[in-house]
Amino acid sequence: MSDETEKTGKTGEAPSRRAFLKGAALAGGAAMVPASVRAEPDPLITEVQPWAQFLGEGVDARPYGTPSPHEAHVRRRHVEWLTADPISSVNFTPLHELDGIITPNGLCFERHHAGIAEIDPGDYRLMINGLVDNPLVFTLQDLMRFPRENHVYFLECAANSGMEWRGAQLNGCQFTHGMVHNVMYTGVPLRLLLQEAGVQTSGAWVLPEGADASAMTRSVPLEKALDDCLVAFKMNGEMLRPEQGYPVRLVVPGWEGNMWVKWLRRIEIGDQPWHHREETSKYTDLFSDGRARRFTWEMDAKSVITNPSPQAPITHGPGPTVVTGLAWSGRGTIPRVDVSLDGGMNWVQARMSGPSLDKSLHRFYHEFDWDGRPLLLQSRAHDSTGYVQPTKDQLREVRGVNSIYHNNGIQTWAVDETGVTENVEVS
Amino acid sequence: MSDETEKTGKTGEAPSRRAFLKGAALAGGAAMVPASVRAEPDPLITEVQPWAQFLGEGVDARPYGTPSPHEAHVRRRHVEWLTADPISSVNFTPLHELDGIITPNGLCFERHHAGIAEIDPGDYRLMINGLVDNPLVFTLQDLMRFPRENHVYFLECAANSGMEWRGAQLNGCQFTHGMVHNVMYTGVPLRLLLQEAGVQTSGAWVLPEGADASAMTRSVPLEKALDDCLVAFKMNGEMLRPEQGYPVRLVVPGWEGNMWVKWLRRIEIGDQPWHHREETSKYTDLFSDGRARRFTWEMDAKSVITNPSPQAPITHGPGPTVVTGLAWSGRGTIPRVDVSLDGGMNWVQARMSGPSLDKSLHRFYHEFDWDGRPLLLQSRAHDSTGYVQPTKDQLREVRGVNSIYHNNGIQTWAVDETGVTENVEVS
Repeated sequence: MSDETEKTGKTGEAPSRRAFLKGAALAGGAAMVPASVRAEPDPLITEVQPWAQFLGEGVDARPYGTPSPHEAHVRRRHVEWLTADPISSVNFTPLHELDGIITPNGLCFERHHAGIAEIDPGDYRLMINGLVDNPLVFTLQDLMRFPRENHVYFLECAANSGMEWRGAQLNGCQFTHGMVHNVMYTGVPLRLLLQEAGVQTSGAWVLPEGADASAMTRSVPLEKALDDCLVAFKMNGEMLRPEQGYPVRLVVPGWEGNMWVKWLRRIEIGDQPWHHREETSKYTDLFSDGRARRFTWEMDAKSVITNPSPQAPITHGPGPTVVTGLAWSGRGTIPRVDVSLDGGMNWVQARMSGPSLDKSLHRFYHEFDWDGRPLLLQSRAHDSTGYVQPTKDQLREVRGVNSIYHNNGIQTWAVDETGVTENVEVS
Repeated sequence: MSDETEKTGKTGEAPSRRAFLKGAALAGGAAMVPASVRAEPDPLITEVQPWAQFLGEGVDARPYGTPSPHEAHVRRRHVEWLTADPISSVNFTPLHELDGIITPNGLCFERHHAGIAEIDPGDYRLMINGLVDNPLVFTLQDLMRFPRENHVYFLECAANSGMEWRGAQLNGCQFTHGMVHNVMYTGVPLRLLLQEAGVQTSGAWVLPEGADASAMTRSVPLEKALDDCLVAFKMNGEMLRPEQGYPVRLVVPGWEGNMWVKWLRRIEIGDQPWHHREETSKYTDLFSDGRARRFTWEMDAKSVITNPSPQAPITHGPGPTVVTGLAWSGRGTIPRVDVSLDGGMNWVQARMSGPSLDKSLHRFYHEFDWDGRPLLLQSRAHDSTGYVQPTKDQLREVRGVNSIYHNNGIQTWAVDETGVTENVEVS
């Protein structure tokens, strides 16, 4: 159901809000009745409040704005026991505090292997070498003289939800699913730079390399490099943030995050993959029989309910309730998401709202009249190839429980009578 | 021309980049040759740099990220002589530093009439009263129990470019055109709240009122309120910034910015417009004969070249050069933008890149091989209704030069042989 059909009232599924509020008024005590149906005057609206009596800060106060102090709880979080050191670690996007599909730059999760490289943009260089006719070195200004494109893409770490392989672990979608963000990138198609260098006929793979102390490298097939990869310098309009690769990163749409090399310093062209550290000992999927799946680049279709969720329980009691979440696929768009309130026994089609863009997050909603009984919330994404997000048990049947990466199983949140929400497993 | 056609090489218009660089190499001295064609090894790429030798900051350093210190010049700016006090004033979005179509929240221009109201979200209330069956008071949580939508919309102050009526004034697109921003809003359709209150049959207008000390009010026709207005609480995913109306503002897509009432506290339903201060003494368009045009709500199609521009001159010398800018219309989308290099004598169709969304900024590009001769850069937007952006002189013929508002005339930048760029008038 699109916003358009909703606008014209032909929703079919969205219950009348007036019915909701009347239902809520009947359902319980004062605490459970939305204030919108209160009969008494509210002093917060009838009495003149301080903010209406005094002048506030002017336009010279904040040349670069920051969130309200009341939103200080909206932040990236890391899990101390997860890694030996915060230098080679991860923090997580607070998905439960966000809405829409754009992640603000300050809240995009971070994953570093050697901390944040601090590079003066005047000292930035990008080299293209290997099997090319003309090895090239570009300054940042050189890159900005090539034609640019703008695309919104999700970036998901291959290890997102990785700790859930052996059962429900972390209590909050920030921790189970927060290694994903979605921004608009501006950059030069890698294809144009490779054309400039002149890839030799034996060239079949490219090796992007990071300028930080970890010198991150991954083997990328030339076909992907020529298709939709971007050498990007802006995110959501402004220059990349330091932790996202300032001043230049590679964008590899739909593919696992560690291939999106940050602080990009070099792109080598070769005739076969390099089998470097980050594509052998890491970022391969260990099966039960000891064999490992390699080169699992594409991120499968996935979804998660962001509200309610363990960090964002239902606090308003029974009555009208909004369920919302995110869905994405490395293979295209998300035409449909289903929501279950009973652990997967019954499903209803969610309402999508916001632009449906290729390899981008999609936002879904399901509004319902909660009767106060416990819920087992699930969401299930369908992508534009027809693929349907599997259950965790279906994944485990094929891949066992030794893997860290590419867990796109259906997530379950249990909501109790008081609204408290927890990460659980159902089978 | 779409990105798709560009990708397959069928661009028709984008010159070969290799031809560009060869041309540049022939055109001038070393300073004008892009570094990408340098033959000698560059020590910045061949020698190990400090950022590759030492570990950087970890994931615990910045729970809410900020731009690189090297980007400190990218900021909102106000003009001290423009207003008596920064409390009732404006600052401007640095359009010349941005790309794509999303404005980061920290750089969205500000316009306040009594400074930034500081409201604790727990104390927030929205009242709907007047010609309704059920006067209602909503808390923030109440609002979040209604169905939400997500839309990217531009917000432009009616006074944007207002100082240009009498000729070229301010040297920089930040100052001439920087009272516009473009973010993704999440909010409840106003229609749903009005349905809840039950608008009486005599109701024809709504009066949104701000909670700040200026108590901003504007008359909005009920038809618009029921069409696409949003009661919004999020921008680019996170809660509204304080200066943008935290926690709740009205979104009035395509209409002038001061109707998008911030810190929204009340919506009254009436049977005729109120003719309040901000729609009589201000935000009306004074004609030469002393009459004033009122209720000029819709923002006409407009465009501006953001690079090069006076604050962002050409510093790389002749050769491959990227011209880019923004276009928008309060009446729909922008299917086409034309660019002129010679003050409007000849026009070429620009390349659009990025999502084309209703009542949203659109990004255009024109790449060309600059021969080093002076340029008179212009852009001209065509919107989806067929309307074509007029020249400033065409506007003055109809409206005179007494107006402040709704100047959507074609902007001209003069680029000299050294790349220095200035705001000029051509006729």
